[in-house]
Amino acid sequence: MPATINLNADLGESFGAWRMGSDDEMLPLVDSANVACGFHAGDPLVLRKTLRLAREHGVSVGAHPSYPDLQGFGRRSMAMAPDELEAAILYQIAALDGLARVEGTAVNHVKPHGALNNAACASRALAETVVRAIRAYGRDLILLAPALSELYVAGEAAGLPVVAEVFADRAYQDDGQLVPRSQPGAMIHGPEASFAHVERMLAEGAIVSLNGKRLPCPIGSICVHGDGAEAVATAAYLRRRLAADGYRFAGLPALLQNRNSCG
Amino acid sequence: MPATINLNADLGESFGAWRMGSDDEMLPLVDSANVACGFHAGDPLVLRKTLRLAREHGVSVGAHPSYPDLQGFGRRSMAMAPDELEAAILYQIAALDGLARVEGTAVNHVKPHGALNNAACASRALAETVVRAIRAYGRDLILLAPALSELYVAGEAAGLPVVAEVFADRAYQDDGQLVPRSQPGAMIHGPEASFAHVERMLAEGAIVSLNGKRLPCPIGSICVHGDGAEAVATAAYLRRRLAADGYRFAGLPALLQNRNSCG
Amino acid sequence: MPATINLNADLGESFGAWRMGSDDEMLPLVDSANVACGFHAGDPLVLRKTLRLAREHGVSVGAHPSYPDLQGFGRRSMAMAPDELEAAILYQIAALDGLARVEGTAVNHVKPHGALNNAACASRALAETVVRAIRAYGRDLILLAPALSELYVAGEAAGLPVVAEVFADRAYQDDGQLVPRSQPGAMIHGPEASFAHVERMLAEGAIVSLNGKRLPCPIGSICVHGDGAEAVATAAYLRRRLAADGYRFAGLPALLQNRNSCG
Amino acid sequence: MPATINLNADLGESFGAWRMGSDDEMLPLVDSANVACGFHAGDPLVLRKTLRLAREHGVSVGAHPSYPDLQGFGRRSMAMAPDELEAAILYQIAALDGLARVEGTAVNHVKPHGALNNAACASRALAETVVRAIRAYGRDLILLAPALSELYVAGEAAGLPVVAEVFADRAYQDDGQLVPRSQPGAMIHGPEASFAHVERMLAEGAIVSLNGKRLPCPIGSICVHGDGAEAVATAAYLRRRLAADGYRFAGLPALLQNRNSCG
Repeated sequence: MPATINLNADLGESFGAWRMGSDDEMLPLVDSANVACGFHAGDPLVLRKTLRLAREHGVSVGAHPSYPDLQGFGRRSMAMAPDELEAAILYQIAALDGLARVEGTAVNHVKPHGALNNAACASRALAETVVRAIRAYGRDLILLAPALSELYVAGEAAGLPVVAEVFADRAYQDDGQLVPRSQPGAMIHGPEASFAHVERMLAEGAIVSLNGKRLPCPIGSICVHGDGAEAVATAAYLRRRLAADGYRFAGLPALLQNRNSCG
Repeated sequence: MPATINLNADLGESFGAWRMGSDDEMLPLVDSANVACGFHAGDPLVLRKTLRLAREHGVSVGAHPSYPDLQGFGRRSMAMAPDELEAAILYQIAALDGLARVEGTAVNHVKPHGALNNAACASRALAETVVRAIRAYGRDLILLAPALSELYVAGEAAGLPVVAEVFADRAYQDDGQLVPRSQPGAMIHGPEASFAHVERMLAEGAIVSLNGKRLPCPIGSICVHGDGAEAVATAAYLRRRLAADGYRFAGLPALLQNRNSCG
Repeated sequence: MPATINLNADLGESFGAWRMGSDDEMLPLVDSANVACGFHAGDPLVLRKTLRLAREHGVSVGAHPSYPDLQGFGRRSMAMAPDELEAAILYQIAALDGLARVEGTAVNHVKPHGALNNAACASRALAETVVRAIRAYGRDLILLAPALSELYVAGEAAGLPVVAEVFADRAYQDDGQLVPRSQPGAMIHGPEASFAHVERMLAEGAIVSLNGKRLPCPIGSICVHGDGAEAVATAAYLRRRLAADGYRFAGLPALLQNRNSCG
Repeated sequence: MPATINLNADLGESFGAWRMGSDDEMLPLVDSANVACGFHAGDPLVLRKTLRLAREHGVSVGAHPSYPDLQGFGRRSMAMAPDELEAAILYQIAALDGLARVEGTAVNHVKPHGALNNAACASRALAETVVRAIRAYGRDLILLAPALSELYVAGEAAGLPVVAEVFADRAYQDDGQLVPRSQPGAMIHGPEASFAHVERMLAEGAIVSLNGKRLPCPIGSICVHGDGAEAVATAAYLRRRLAADGYRFAGLPALLQNRNSCG
């Protein structure tokens, strides 16, 4: 039976008069969209349009909640109290899910954004707050979390359905964490290099670090960034080459059903 | 059979470190709460706590969506395009409803806030945008609208369940609209005067203007403002005296069920 | 003696992660920059960088204050009380001027942005609030106002130095107001057509409407929009052709000094 | 010659419809006001009114800049890049100073707010960013910093005029830092206890910790919090008792002049 994989991208990140990303071009190339919820990007009209497009393209939808920080695009760590953060995540999931239902789709997964995601990958306590918010909203919501992260572990421990993602354009350290953008070699440039990076990790069933270290882990989804001209080219190339390798593509709910039915 | 009436108040209007209103004291005194949604007031944690309290007090919950204007507390008219406004209202209803469901309750009605409510009472086109948003979210959502307003008319025309409210502390003009706050006699001060005002309108089945003009209309709910020490005293007094008059109290869904089953 | 003219553009309109406009390319092509102040666009770091670039290019700086509405980019009319609006404009001028002084330049003029500008062009009362704010900050601040607008009139009446601007890419109605964007012929496309439009108005000393009606008025500055690839091409073309026509270019303070010394 | 001391409080912390603090009652009781700048509290109209009142009461004015976080009242630590933070502080000082000048006063000192102040007290690098912003705006701006903090040290090292403050209602640890609010004994309750705490520190010329440890340091100003009914009573009591002890009171600029002329 062919292996099934998921491509995900962060979409809905325009705000008011400001455009970001290439939602129109990315949606035909991905299986799941992490849609901004208004706290780091995405005003209500942008979200509604993005959700409509996602439904039209048959792309499964996830919430992409953030710290409340438009000016910093959710990329600045903020010290929020756990109850405050939990409520903020719930609010964002709920707002997006309600809009999604109006547009004939629904929020099927949650992937924290930016600094919140980074913090939840590094801190078990913070990861547990994120997981608590997701479970409070719905116990069948899928958590999309970086492979080998505290967030992944916390989701599994809480009994959430969890899918592990790797990044097509980012190199890894020997501990499984991303090489910081400030260091040389952090970014993987160009569709071919990204594909080679991804293909190897899928083949090995492991994150493969910049030094070649192999860190076995489940890999269910590949994150292709939604911004920049290269993103579209990379997503298209990955999709074509992975298809040629025999991979089938699925939204996150179908991926999990498939996996469970194969178990 | 005793007549049934509803008392409603605007709650959840604190924000971060700033307190507003007396939610704890008002909740035992009202049947329905119009809860802020974060656009004019109410951060996610405030909303969650307010919703929890509302559920504990058996108070039915409505969304109180606003123009996006924290600084102006939603009291400044804003020229939003219809699709923009519709999405903004949907986002707010959805966010609040999701939080409400997590807290074991749900959004049963919608009452626009402040300048948005004023505009929707005066403009049929704007009222229709508001109604479109409510219907898109759920066709059984109750619209709580001022009696004799364009908003009430638009809701009825669209087939929404609509409940008409009158204000306990505001005088009316001969056309059924509120006397502007800038004019003498606009405000009705003190529990006794508010009760006399309300009692007369309920007895007459009509708005009774400052000049004594009688404008027959259905009256299902009485709005008692949630802010200020007087609000609590007025709500308590109204409740006691209306009970003494033989009125029974109900949340908005029960009020409508009751009305329909009596029809 | 050659006539002197000013080219102005709206700059500093990026915000956080979102880019807007081509400040780097526009600054060498204009004489004065209307710099956002953070209420419709422009976070503090964007403003500081824009001001530094303006100083490096010898471009005179103006404040471009707006209604407080990032989501609507200041394009939505808002009903603000006069004292509230006056304080909001003062705050914005002050913030920008302080940053400008740190960068070795200063705010020399003020041009309201978007919906605030439109409102001040149409309403004398609103224009007077804007003018009051400007005068409170500094009586030698130049008001850059559309020719034939209430704002222009209010500025003159209050004794502010005022420069009238016309738009290179917008057609005019017979009453001197802009053809609304929703109507055919509102926009003038391409550098050649824009230049022809501007050249004729300068030659006639009048706004020339879409119907050919001539409305004499002083014209001191030409607004070239800062956004879009065409904006850069148009600004460059206008500058070259106007220079070929013998016009000299000046920042707004120099323009006024020149005019006064020639009086 | 009698010793001179300064009482300071955080004011201007209302926002839109939300009230906070007792500015009217505190202003007659303090010598210097740290005025919010709009990022954690204080809309432009609130700021303008606070500045006018400060001028009327002869209270010297300082800027109280914050992380950009209305929802969190500036109490949540945020990871801002140094250039971003420096620009944000400059923007706030400039906005307040411009409004102050319009009201016939000026920003004479700067005291960071909340989480920004805490961070700048603990991190030398962050303190240096704060100091850089202050110096960029004006080399004679006074830094009001907690005694024995990294912020105090960084200000001195950069050649800024610095005044050290102690808190009337907070206990100290043996290292000179505040006892965290979460620990017992952190808060000093009531006017008498606050006065005893302050009087002892002034007499000893030292911070005196909860354990009685004496940490000699200059003390120029006493912070009395501006919020809460107790704040007014405490400020009034401190002022009366300190006057009875022979202390004279001065705004921060006068305090420094006095100190320098006595040197």
